Amino acid sequence: MFVVKVDGRARRARCVLATVALVAAGCSGRGVPDPAAVSDGRAAGASPASARAAADPLPSWNEGAAKAAIVAFVERVSREDGPDFVPPGERIAAFDDNGTLACEQPMSLQLAFALDRIHELAPEHPEWRTREPFKSVLEGDSKAALAGGEAAAAELIAATGVGTTTEELNAIVTRWVLTAHHPRFGRPYIEAVYQPMVELLAYLRANAFKTFIVSVAGADFMRPWSEDAFGVPTEQVLGSRANLDYEVRDGKPRIELRAGVERIADKAGKPVAIQEQIGRRPIAAFGNSDGDIEMLEWTTSGSGPRLGVIVHHTDVTREYAYDRGSATGTLARALDEAPKRGWIVVDMKQDWKIAFPFEQ
Amino acid sequence: MFVVKVDGRARRARCVLATVALVAAGCSGRGVPDPAAVSDGRAAGASPASARAAADPLPSWNEGAAKAAIVAFVERVSREDGPDFVPPGERIAAFDDNGTLACEQPMSLQLAFALDRIHELAPEHPEWRTREPFKSVLEGDSKAALAGGEAAAAELIAATGVGTTTEELNAIVTRWVLTAHHPRFGRPYIEAVYQPMVELLAYLRANAFKTFIVSVAGADFMRPWSEDAFGVPTEQVLGSRANLDYEVRDGKPRIELRAGVERIADKAGKPVAIQEQIGRRPIAAFGNSDGDIEMLEWTTSGSGPRLGVIVHHTDVTREYAYDRGSATGTLARALDEAPKRGWIVVDMKQDWKIAFPFEQ
Repeated sequence: MFVVKVDGRARRARCVLATVALVAAGCSGRGVPDPAAVSDGRAAGASPASARAAADPLPSWNEGAAKAAIVAFVERVSREDGPDFVPPGERIAAFDDNGTLACEQPMSLQLAFALDRIHELAPEHPEWRTREPFKSVLEGDSKAALAGGEAAAAELIAATGVGTTTEELNAIVTRWVLTAHHPRFGRPYIEAVYQPMVELLAYLRANAFKTFIVSVAGADFMRPWSEDAFGVPTEQVLGSRANLDYEVRDGKPRIELRAGVERIADKAGKPVAIQEQIGRRPIAAFGNSDGDIEMLEWTTSGSGPRLGVIVHHTDVTREYAYDRGSATGTLARALDEAPKRGWIVVDMKQDWKIAFPFEQ
Repeated sequence: MFVVKVDGRARRARCVLATVALVAAGCSGRGVPDPAAVSDGRAAGASPASARAAADPLPSWNEGAAKAAIVAFVERVSREDGPDFVPPGERIAAFDDNGTLACEQPMSLQLAFALDRIHELAPEHPEWRTREPFKSVLEGDSKAALAGGEAAAAELIAATGVGTTTEELNAIVTRWVLTAHHPRFGRPYIEAVYQPMVELLAYLRANAFKTFIVSVAGADFMRPWSEDAFGVPTEQVLGSRANLDYEVRDGKPRIELRAGVERIADKAGKPVAIQEQIGRRPIAAFGNSDGDIEMLEWTTSGSGPRLGVIVHHTDVTREYAYDRGSATGTLARALDEAPKRGWIVVDMKQDWKIAFPFEQ
């Protein structure tokens, strides 16, 4: 009911994802380990995770320290008779979105959406022709439009949501993410997501993890495509939040986005969002920028086994290479802290065989 | 890690719940329908739900219109080849807590907790000896303490949370709900929950529903015992929310409750909380007071099959009888609206064989 299908493409995307999940789950046909496979694993004295690893649930990852550390962690917490066993209900994994699951260059998805949407909405807003940052957007000069930094970006994003209902926005975003194309890769944005991370999400779920997205983007922007792209249902997507308003208009109830932001899920806002919505500290967290430090810190400072992972953009050929100097996705302090805190740094060029599903 | 166990009682509570879930799931030993049972049901031309109904997943419910309507709804949405089939991921059910799942008389659980906690904290707060509403609480006169209505109650509740971390509060609430006794029933508060509703939650989950609690109580108050009492994990508990603050103190990250309330999940705040946290409209909602009207309205005005249920407190012998005139859990407009909107009204005296698990 909630996800609007546009010419069957969402369905296809879901099928691709389902296949990945099947491989990760040892072809049990479900998102959880096959009971028979688990029993066999136990009988043979091996853990379910290591029994499945034979089929390589992470085929797009090169063998190396990063992959080995991730697999070892999953096996440790899944081994029922081991000292580090974590009950399934407590296997919470939190993923940043921009730059961790999806490409955030040359700009974040939500900003790219906002720029496109400004053009669509322009006929209803003649005042935008003379008012920045809208004027520059409409003249096709996104660089000038974004000269105002985060404030300008926030104004553009807000203009695309205020006054629409969450169900209308759902339909608009779904259509956009399936039909608008990434400027460099020439593919729909829903395909500009990292294949190794999609596999990792499925691998974790196959080992009874609950996977959550904790994004600085609006939850109402992420949810329409989070299940198709990442297998993450709407209730496991946390994001920044517009103020919402419930009213009955012409006898019909509606929930509408209002001006103003209720919460920004960035930096310290990430662990706060996790506590508000999940109510339990994750045991694994995945990020790519300094905005993810507090989420990684909160996750990895709990007792028992913990995993913190940083995706480092090092692959200028297949994707982009950026860290300290980048305006989008600045990665400096987290890179310095990683070795001290035991966070795994994934080198995209070295650790991944491919970046995107369309390279296959 | 998150739920603190106190002298093994939480574990026992969980076992009781697990047994209920097993019965509801046709003894498959899991929270989802047993695959073999589902196949058998299909082979015999019956729906999985009706196949299981033979074992009566709702043994504490009398046969009658309310039970029949609930079972018919679940069977309709579960029948894969039927016109009203709803995919499992969209089977969202939202439950109010106070008065719908747990006894809210003579006062709400969170208020009872706050009164007890004021006594515990009094040595650290000599100023309470002379300041209302604390003075009356400490003198044992809760009626005088609550003469100030909702504002007084809110002040008392806030005083028990501000300055504690969410993990400390978790441990304090867990201990209280297992050890403090309901004044009328002489049982721990965690047992003053409605057995028929516990069965209903398990029955819905056995039919692939995701069950959520949407409570005016603080989420941080509900979560420590929601899984043991109701089988609802922390991330599926929505409630009112204190302002939370993340900081690193002495090298250790902590999330602390601060003064002020970020959100009140009551009336129109319930559908807003549902959109914020679940991001999808429920297909079934359960409440007991006028504070639940908007949640029922939002749920039942969507397209496709919908279920709205009101629990009406009519049983003065086993529990309490109250509606229009009650200060706690006022039920007036919702009772008038129910027949017009097709909401099912459960008559606790007529429709339930028992109210509490300890009557068994």
